[in-house]
Amino acid sequence: MKHVKVPDVTIRRLSVYLRHLKELEERGETVVSSTALAKACGVNAAQVRKDLAYFGEFGIRGVGYYVRDLVERLKEILGLNREWRLAVIGIGNLGTALLNFKDFLKENYKIVAAFDKSPEKVIGKLAERLGRPAEVIHIDRLKEVAKERKIDIALLTVPPQEAQKVADLVVEANIRGILNFTPVQIKVPKGFVVKNAYFTTVLDNLVYYLQSKRR
Amino acid sequence: MKHVKVPDVTIRRLSVYLRHLKELEERGETVVSSTALAKACGVNAAQVRKDLAYFGEFGIRGVGYYVRDLVERLKEILGLNREWRLAVIGIGNLGTALLNFKDFLKENYKIVAAFDKSPEKVIGKLAERLGRPAEVIHIDRLKEVAKERKIDIALLTVPPQEAQKVADLVVEANIRGILNFTPVQIKVPKGFVVKNAYFTTVLDNLVYYLQSKRR
Repeated sequence: MKHVKVPDVTIRRLSVYLRHLKELEERGETVVSSTALAKACGVNAAQVRKDLAYFGEFGIRGVGYYVRDLVERLKEILGLNREWRLAVIGIGNLGTALLNFKDFLKENYKIVAAFDKSPEKVIGKLAERLGRPAEVIHIDRLKEVAKERKIDIALLTVPPQEAQKVADLVVEANIRGILNFTPVQIKVPKGFVVKNAYFTTVLDNLVYYLQSKRR
Repeated sequence: MKHVKVPDVTIRRLSVYLRHLKELEERGETVVSSTALAKACGVNAAQVRKDLAYFGEFGIRGVGYYVRDLVERLKEILGLNREWRLAVIGIGNLGTALLNFKDFLKENYKIVAAFDKSPEKVIGKLAERLGRPAEVIHIDRLKEVAKERKIDIALLTVPPQEAQKVADLVVEANIRGILNFTPVQIKVPKGFVVKNAYFTTVLDNLVYYLQSKRR
């Protein structure tokens, strides 16, 4: 694989393509045109071809893409051909929603631990049925448990005022990835990755386009 | 304001800048350098200046930006100088988390209604204390209530298999904006705006960078 710098938006679109392709695969479809794939994903066909071109040759002229092939290649590109082990840190409403999140079952994501500073919090029956951890662990045990359970990624859903402090604990526990659900811009050392999933910036973005249309 | 096409990532960063500037304002800071603003927001100073340059002249050479001024200008640019009226549609764990989301209190976002196909669902005490709607309304009444309560934006947190069907109801109710928390790529007519807040694509994105680092 060439080491060109791939735009972040391309990576995000690949993951949208992958989800749609997996649906097609489930429905037993074997081939899809770039036009059909593009339409389903809300972009145009040229964009799909351009995004894929960063990673080599895909698809066959006049045919399109073989669904299963493209699923495998995209999984490989995105790093989704292995299991990723997640911990939810902060068991409020959002943390609980994540523990009850069914879609992970179809993906290579596995929630292996739940942490909070109040370990007496209760995880619901649904989460247990989904094979999620049954007990909440005190955040003080993060480092020890991260090693035991080989945690790759922390889903950070603590209150904003605790975000950086808890992120520091995550780094100390050598968990390399943080999906940050707080509004705080978190700092981590080199070698660690933070991505922001705080939805309010997306909401602001939506509003920008709504008011632009009114002008 | 000039009608140049502003990149979507710029708009998203403006909203990150705005949040940080509001914090500075609360702390009583009057001036901030582009370097300090950039650092707090995880970008570099050139990026901050370039993002702002789309919208005219800001800041004073050798001084930086006046915090309150820049807050007002950014609010105006983003359309956040007025109230936006939200409805949560789908009262599961995520819908409940949104109803309990305190940060809206500091913003011009107001949740004015909650819908579900099971209106007997109960909204917690916390949400009520935050001034959120006390009752869940049956989704069949969406159109009528949208008009009465002047709903601008739907936060869509229904199960994936119902996403498009409910989005069609939102369009019929003439609610112009949808923040889509489902994995489904929703289709709406011209004049309506959908933005995706489904976090799994962000998680995929995080994984891409984690595995890239290992190569």
